[in-house]
Amino acid sequence: MNQTEKIQSYLQTHQIDAAFITTPDNVFYFTGFKSNPHERLLGVAIFKEAAPFIICPKMEIPDAKAAGWNGEIIGHQDTDNAWDILVQKMNETASNIQSLAVEKSHMTVERLEALEERLSNLQISRIDEKINDLRVIKSEAELVNMRKAAELADYAIEVGCKEIAEGKTEIEILNAIELAVKEKGAAQMSFDTMVLSGPKTASPHGTPGDRKIQKGDFILFDLGVVYNGYCSDITRTVAFGEPSPDKREIYETVRRAEEAAVAAVKPGVTAMALDKTARDIITEAGYGEYFTHRLGHGLGISVHEFPSITGVNDMKLEKGMVFTIEPGIYHPDITGVRIEDDVVVTESGVEVLTKFPKELQIL
Amino acid sequence: MNQTEKIQSYLQTHQIDAAFITTPDNVFYFTGFKSNPHERLLGVAIFKEAAPFIICPKMEIPDAKAAGWNGEIIGHQDTDNAWDILVQKMNETASNIQSLAVEKSHMTVERLEALEERLSNLQISRIDEKINDLRVIKSEAELVNMRKAAELADYAIEVGCKEIAEGKTEIEILNAIELAVKEKGAAQMSFDTMVLSGPKTASPHGTPGDRKIQKGDFILFDLGVVYNGYCSDITRTVAFGEPSPDKREIYETVRRAEEAAVAAVKPGVTAMALDKTARDIITEAGYGEYFTHRLGHGLGISVHEFPSITGVNDMKLEKGMVFTIEPGIYHPDITGVRIEDDVVVTESGVEVLTKFPKELQIL
Repeated sequence: MNQTEKIQSYLQTHQIDAAFITTPDNVFYFTGFKSNPHERLLGVAIFKEAAPFIICPKMEIPDAKAAGWNGEIIGHQDTDNAWDILVQKMNETASNIQSLAVEKSHMTVERLEALEERLSNLQISRIDEKINDLRVIKSEAELVNMRKAAELADYAIEVGCKEIAEGKTEIEILNAIELAVKEKGAAQMSFDTMVLSGPKTASPHGTPGDRKIQKGDFILFDLGVVYNGYCSDITRTVAFGEPSPDKREIYETVRRAEEAAVAAVKPGVTAMALDKTARDIITEAGYGEYFTHRLGHGLGISVHEFPSITGVNDMKLEKGMVFTIEPGIYHPDITGVRIEDDVVVTESGVEVLTKFPKELQIL
Repeated sequence: MNQTEKIQSYLQTHQIDAAFITTPDNVFYFTGFKSNPHERLLGVAIFKEAAPFIICPKMEIPDAKAAGWNGEIIGHQDTDNAWDILVQKMNETASNIQSLAVEKSHMTVERLEALEERLSNLQISRIDEKINDLRVIKSEAELVNMRKAAELADYAIEVGCKEIAEGKTEIEILNAIELAVKEKGAAQMSFDTMVLSGPKTASPHGTPGDRKIQKGDFILFDLGVVYNGYCSDITRTVAFGEPSPDKREIYETVRRAEEAAVAAVKPGVTAMALDKTARDIITEAGYGEYFTHRLGHGLGISVHEFPSITGVNDMKLEKGMVFTIEPGIYHPDITGVRIEDDVVVTESGVEVLTKFPKELQIL
């Protein structure tokens, strides 16, 4: 049963007439067609029995076909009312739609109102969790892409390390990394590449700028590469010149926490237990208050997806889940350090996709 | 009256207790704080009387302060329920919230349900149009940033033209452009830069790849640069080597259409009249079916914002509006051509922000 058939089977079990899926990453998951439609309507309609169709801007129809979609594609133009076209086609495909599953975490109130205006007495339910349940377990074909995306991320860190030199700016290093990765054929980074140096490492969401690298700095790289629609996400923190003992202590604490959490990954362990494994080490070392975010996040078509590796998530890990492990300490007076790997839960333990060394690199 | 006070005045007039604004670009507009919170909660709450506050991930509080926000900031961590924290703070700030204005075009069904669960009998209304009305008219301070963003976009096209050479790939040219623009200090492009060559120009939303430039190709650049939070967006199509007469005819048709629409911009003209000005020229030349999208879109903090310049929008242009004018012809057997400028409606006519020449450049 393919993934679309699994949704059909879900609709049959729950007696729901159709699902209308609009999150671009979910549309890609079910159709192979990746598009950013901005405010325009893009979606895939899946029915209890009838064949699914894509609705998209008319000018993107060739791209949807080129992406390998063999089903029907309904186009709309800027002068059309896309919702009229959608509802008419849905009613033609499965007469009298009375219940519809949507992604409540993505569908806007405005869009729901547009559907409700055109489909009277419509019963709305959530499809979010069902899609997450499918996406959270990666197939071998997906893992092939993710391994390649991680390999490109490792390469990007390698380039970043080679580029570090006294007086170079964060942005200069960032540009060199992205250029090198794109020359390897990667079309896109997973998110805005982060290169932070010196005191700026203490901001978990800082912005690279014109700060020049100085001897004694820690430099934090956080980046990812998209390969065939799948994301990687890696963080390494390296030293430019011999680090002070207090910086080294923070580095080694994060490293111990990260390695312990990675080693604890296997089916049956909860997300919260993983978070606790890393957090306890950091707290016992006296830095608990400076680890201000969750341990990690799911990774795949989206750079942030399920599962969320937090201290309050009691979900048990299963074979095929992929997520980041990325503890950090952000000490405003000393330095920030974060180390992040992408891991897959295997039958018996863990496969680590990102392989760049974690021993402190002194450049 | 500043922009936040205008929202307060709107709330007073309409007897609404508060507005909760979550679109990142709108949060930037009212607070100066630009952030991509991914799935985490980011918003600014504005009240009829009380002072506004920001709610954001705790780790971003320093960034919000650094962005110049002097009001209160409520932080939340991944282990918190951000909605509990938000509603408690809202109720403390203005006791007994009964009516709330939200962006229905951005707020998800899930988020609305989270608010409704915590605020019983909540009356929900739209704030979208009020915010659009404010944002659609740019202040002189905003125009200063947009002129600079456009200048950087012109420069990017200039670099792209210089990079064109037999056998170079689209991605190589794209990388050289982005590198040059970033070296000028631009932190970010407005969207993924597009460099398309030869037959690929016929896809309005194509993806740059490994295709090598050949003599006789048209090359289409579509790109933009962000400056101080404001976007530019330019398209130029240039020829590599002497073009065939049919390609030149398409080029000159698009150019006439574009220039006619630009010349027609002034207060009082409708968006649909502008669209018709360009479309009529293309249709009369016999290419109507190949102009498959609207004439343009508003531009500012977002790369696509209000107003939409379509054949069905009877909105009258007003002084201070900024939008793109970008007719195109996408002929599958000859070539694609698009020409796009960013324009401001002035007291008496138009200011064109993008200045790269529109005479066909033969390189």
